[in-house]
Amino acid sequence: MSANSTTVLTVSYDGAAFHGFARQAGVPTVQGALEDALRTVLRREVVTVCAGRTDAGVHALGEVVSFEAREGDADARTLLRSVGALAAPEIVVTGVRSASPGFSARYDAVAREYRYRLVPGPVAPLFLRDVAWWCKGTLDLAAMREGAAHLVGQHDFRSFCVTGSVEGKSTVREIELLEIEPACELGEHCIIVRIIGRSFLHSMVRIVVGSLVEVGKGRRGPAWMGEALAACDRPAAGPTAPPAGLALWHVTYPEDVWL
Amino acid sequence: MSANSTTVLTVSYDGAAFHGFARQAGVPTVQGALEDALRTVLRREVVTVCAGRTDAGVHALGEVVSFEAREGDADARTLLRSVGALAAPEIVVTGVRSASPGFSARYDAVAREYRYRLVPGPVAPLFLRDVAWWCKGTLDLAAMREGAAHLVGQHDFRSFCVTGSVEGKSTVREIELLEIEPACELGEHCIIVRIIGRSFLHSMVRIVVGSLVEVGKGRRGPAWMGEALAACDRPAAGPTAPPAGLALWHVTYPEDVWL
Repeated sequence: MSANSTTVLTVSYDGAAFHGFARQAGVPTVQGALEDALRTVLRREVVTVCAGRTDAGVHALGEVVSFEAREGDADARTLLRSVGALAAPEIVVTGVRSASPGFSARYDAVAREYRYRLVPGPVAPLFLRDVAWWCKGTLDLAAMREGAAHLVGQHDFRSFCVTGSVEGKSTVREIELLEIEPACELGEHCIIVRIIGRSFLHSMVRIVVGSLVEVGKGRRGPAWMGEALAACDRPAAGPTAPPAGLALWHVTYPEDVWL
Repeated sequence: MSANSTTVLTVSYDGAAFHGFARQAGVPTVQGALEDALRTVLRREVVTVCAGRTDAGVHALGEVVSFEAREGDADARTLLRSVGALAAPEIVVTGVRSASPGFSARYDAVAREYRYRLVPGPVAPLFLRDVAWWCKGTLDLAAMREGAAHLVGQHDFRSFCVTGSVEGKSTVREIELLEIEPACELGEHCIIVRIIGRSFLHSMVRIVVGSLVEVGKGRRGPAWMGEALAACDRPAAGPTAPPAGLALWHVTYPEDVWL
């Protein structure tokens, strides 16, 4: 990698092994593991920026992590191999690219896709147990889709974010897509909630899913999603869905950032 | 459940937690865990018979386990709940049915389907790491399919079974279907090998897969599969694929056995 460029890693990780992405003293984090591996490979301190600061227990498939390149840095192939080998076994580096100088995995992202895996039914999932939320009983997909329609578009999502996490900042966001589809993975039936937007508030995806499950279980009608949104008050929405079902799936950037 | 019937459980398990299905003293086995749970629920000794005596590390989704019912046994719903709760967390009971007296999960099976999950590519799988075999590099699907065609039908599969496991017994079996398809599960690309037959020899599926991978990697041509078969000698075939990629997927019985 050459100076006057940004090195960009695509990374998958198993969230169960980490206290979230962001570095914290004394606990394993994705950022800590990656920066430690990069320090060893590049023989210098490296500060990384990520597309999605996932919470403890949340997985990632297409997390994007960027840092400023320097003259003499190892090439892409070496980085792919050595960072992958040096970081924890629960982190896999799937790609290395170069972007223009000043590129930020966080600020240049134009879309983020998250997916949440629900498993309905009388019996807990086995092979999906670490990557899904078991919602014992049935889930009414049609009602969930009707409820989800209330959230699509640009709205004030204050009801759908952690109280106190946005003091003085805008809570207006745009959900570009909110799709709920049945699937079968590893032989077990599940429901995948796909959500795409430029950016999301703290825990927004998990509160959206927790609220959709209230509708799916029939505890609330689909119209309640619109009322929860309009209230602009966290207690008006449903509970926060557990982290293990969530994965940061894909991040999109403008085509012209890549060198 | 009533006397004069057989109780039939459908069971999934994570093979990593067990030294195979068959009970062995001093180590955790699926049969041991199930029979211990059944003893507690039914307050009597229970001897089970299974459709597929899977080896250590091999998973199961649709394993079928049968035992003779007795007057006063708990009903299906209670069994489903209580055996599931009492057996190890890596065993899930997904169904309970009644079959005619004398039914055997082993001898009455008319077809068994196994699936083997391969992950090609330069980077090891993350979310599929416990349920797949990483074959670093590329796999030539067309060559694998051409090789697989040599095995379909009724043949002597002596080359494809553990040496010494079939002294004096027939090694003729019939592969009804051997399909190789690309898939994407948990966001990771993989190749699923589906194999269906009435019954298989010891380690036959894993040796078939290990041989197909030799062809997929280009170490052998597709025609070699036919030569390996004709040799009727274990060393003529490829290596035994590791257990974690394999799962007993589904077992079929004649419709008229169910009460």
